[in-house]
Amino acid sequence: MASEPFVVVGADAAGLSAASKCRRADPDREVIVFEKGAWISYAYCGMPYFIAGRIDQLSNLLSLSPAQAADRGIDLRRNHEVVAVDPDAQTVRVEHAGDSFDQPYGDLLIATGGRAVTGSLDVRDLDGAFTLHSMDAAAAIDAYIAEPADYDFDRIADTPADRALVEANAALDAPTTAAIVGGGYVGIEMAEALVGRGLDVHLFHRSEHLLPAFGESVADRVEAELRDQGVSVHTNTPVEALVGGDRIEGVVCDAAENAETELGVDLAVVGIGIEPNTGLLDGTDIECSDGGALLTNEFGRTTLPAVYAAGDCATDRHVVTGEHVWMPLGLTANRAGRAIGATVGGDPTPVGDTAATAVVKAFDLECGRVGLLAEDDATAAGFDPVTTTITAGSRSGYYPGTSETDVTLVADRETGRLLGGAIVGADRAAVRINTLATALDAEMGVFDLEQLDLAYAPPFSPVWDPILVAAKVLNGKLSG
Amino acid sequence: MASEPFVVVGADAAGLSAASKCRRADPDREVIVFEKGAWISYAYCGMPYFIAGRIDQLSNLLSLSPAQAADRGIDLRRNHEVVAVDPDAQTVRVEHAGDSFDQPYGDLLIATGGRAVTGSLDVRDLDGAFTLHSMDAAAAIDAYIAEPADYDFDRIADTPADRALVEANAALDAPTTAAIVGGGYVGIEMAEALVGRGLDVHLFHRSEHLLPAFGESVADRVEAELRDQGVSVHTNTPVEALVGGDRIEGVVCDAAENAETELGVDLAVVGIGIEPNTGLLDGTDIECSDGGALLTNEFGRTTLPAVYAAGDCATDRHVVTGEHVWMPLGLTANRAGRAIGATVGGDPTPVGDTAATAVVKAFDLECGRVGLLAEDDATAAGFDPVTTTITAGSRSGYYPGTSETDVTLVADRETGRLLGGAIVGADRAAVRINTLATALDAEMGVFDLEQLDLAYAPPFSPVWDPILVAAKVLNGKLSG
Repeated sequence: MASEPFVVVGADAAGLSAASKCRRADPDREVIVFEKGAWISYAYCGMPYFIAGRIDQLSNLLSLSPAQAADRGIDLRRNHEVVAVDPDAQTVRVEHAGDSFDQPYGDLLIATGGRAVTGSLDVRDLDGAFTLHSMDAAAAIDAYIAEPADYDFDRIADTPADRALVEANAALDAPTTAAIVGGGYVGIEMAEALVGRGLDVHLFHRSEHLLPAFGESVADRVEAELRDQGVSVHTNTPVEALVGGDRIEGVVCDAAENAETELGVDLAVVGIGIEPNTGLLDGTDIECSDGGALLTNEFGRTTLPAVYAAGDCATDRHVVTGEHVWMPLGLTANRAGRAIGATVGGDPTPVGDTAATAVVKAFDLECGRVGLLAEDDATAAGFDPVTTTITAGSRSGYYPGTSETDVTLVADRETGRLLGGAIVGADRAAVRINTLATALDAEMGVFDLEQLDLAYAPPFSPVWDPILVAAKVLNGKLSG
Repeated sequence: MASEPFVVVGADAAGLSAASKCRRADPDREVIVFEKGAWISYAYCGMPYFIAGRIDQLSNLLSLSPAQAADRGIDLRRNHEVVAVDPDAQTVRVEHAGDSFDQPYGDLLIATGGRAVTGSLDVRDLDGAFTLHSMDAAAAIDAYIAEPADYDFDRIADTPADRALVEANAALDAPTTAAIVGGGYVGIEMAEALVGRGLDVHLFHRSEHLLPAFGESVADRVEAELRDQGVSVHTNTPVEALVGGDRIEGVVCDAAENAETELGVDLAVVGIGIEPNTGLLDGTDIECSDGGALLTNEFGRTTLPAVYAAGDCATDRHVVTGEHVWMPLGLTANRAGRAIGATVGGDPTPVGDTAATAVVKAFDLECGRVGLLAEDDATAAGFDPVTTTITAGSRSGYYPGTSETDVTLVADRETGRLLGGAIVGADRAAVRINTLATALDAEMGVFDLEQLDLAYAPPFSPVWDPILVAAKVLNGKLSG
């Protein structure tokens, strides 16, 4: 048993899952969690829905409180930033309130998450320009959208929200026109949120297809849905700059045909991606992926002794390829944290693979994706991908409410092995992706998939579930 | 290549799927389909929703028309009843319009479906008393519920409905109080339909738990939902007799505590089960299950040479036990028919296993079940079952519309293998059962299940999908 404490850096999903599980597994183990900010254990994925006004209070997005963490025996230290790791001494350098100190560790978990990438777009110096990667940003955007007289400070009650920031944003005139930069999850969810708040919304996306990870069949439906809902969608349109004085006044974009054009806006949300927060490991010889995420093994161990990593700063093992991939998503962060907590607490537990399962709501559409979907990715992994997309009803054709559901499946030509898939539709489409996630985990072939006994009842599914229809068509292609 | 035709007995899901597929696979093969009645290719599962008034016309429940069957090159003969099979001569005896003849076959498919069981309850001699196992019965019930002046004969336009039967039922005064006998799928669906039509509905069920195949966790929720929706639920209450003169006047039931009691009703729907239609094979030495369903191998072949069986008259292979089971459901009927058509057409194709996957809507609840759920069944199959039931939200707790979802999982104590499960809830619960159907097909253990990368997004699922929560708890039980 290590005599030095289990030190966790970062108090969100992965970090606190690990800390809690370790304390349960080994109640005698000292567990210290350093968090550089004031917020802990918050639901990043809920922020767009808070801004949409569907969630009354920001505190609803908090799961574990500092008091609850203390009840679990976790020594939680907020506003403590770990700035360096010394793997030889097995210490971390911690800065707090202008001081710094070295904290020894027996085991160390890096759960520092990610930070928003903004490229050439500097959101920091312009009022009304934001990224959406912190609870303070969510609070600020929400306050900014409200008319000064209308903002209800109860929205941020019982949270450590930056009151001055919120007040400053609440005091500004409400915006009427928004630019969202980036058509990934955050962009799509923010488009829905801002339309719901009554704004005129422009969504700018660098390439041709929105939600690139979901493939073209999903992108096409989502783009049509966004337009139907009143969003002005600008694909193939990188935004080059945000312009304004104190407050944002416009975005400058590189529209292919008409050189640079400027659109006047009074709100901009930049959601073009995140990158792993791993600066604290600079100077060590820890191994990272090309994108800078920490490589981990099946137990979440990094290449440094006694140092683990989990969540948005770490890689996972891909269930199809077996390779390290960086797939910053909620379940894998929680699960890896919990597994590492068990392992550190004496019960070695694998962190589990990622199938890169993701789902997103786009107004009335539900979108899901899993596995290797892009043919380039499948080819790079050594497969010979064959893809098919079908459209089938979500219910029996005669039952009211049936909705066209598009299913894309990708399989390896030679072996017939399922490699990935995507689903989009308005009726229960998202959770259907779990069938494919399970099939990938089991390394099923498309013929196995076609033979699955999936549920049928007129209100929920046609006799042949859309996945079975897709499997049947893809089998025909594979054997044809 | 067989020179005699492929003869199919029964023109519903299994029979016409086989006939169509055989014609596609081998366009030169003669395919004759005998159907004893006038209806073909109808959606049995849609009948309650027609009666509920959610479907405008009975013709909406028809998929393939006789003309379309002819276009596929199928020699369809309606009102032809096959009354006997001579496996030595390879002929079937067919009765039609008072005559009979022998039809030789090269291959024969028995797709005769099932018929309603009524036990001691004779529905035939009482107006207002029905089973729900034919399109004519659906039309008659629908007409009976309407006031004589209100019935719209367009409801049965473009169908071979028995016009005299519908007219007779439409002419009767509309009922106000209904007894549904049997709390299985049909009973539950009919309760919803009849409440929707404004009737006072009493549901009688012989044993303690409704929907016995779905287990107690589902039964409890469904019973509460039915009561909430105004249905009078009488469990542990077998109905002993239907009483009346020309028209039904009441049901006599054996209520445990007060001996026999009678409830006045003017509509009774008996849905206590079905049995396989296999009388045409009397006198042959074909092998059947205890319940009388035709035993079939992986290609749908019976124990007679060149004789196949599919659909509600045949057994399937259970994906967990590998044993023959009789599980009369829509997908397996269609799939087995299609596979047999391919096999007969020269492309040997397995019919696929059944996971006994079933889903049903009970007002606002969605219910699903799969695999071996009852501990007795698991024990009989040689397993040592351990069961757990958990309740989890269907969405992130902070997201509006989250609904308590109960998941029951059953696993084998020694191996941890998943044996079965059930899910009930109001929000996308039914299609979640497909995850378990897929896991059963892959012979997953509960630890594998817990490690699945299932979808998470606040509108669709909490971070830990309810299935993952159940797997975690059951793993704890297995290792504890």
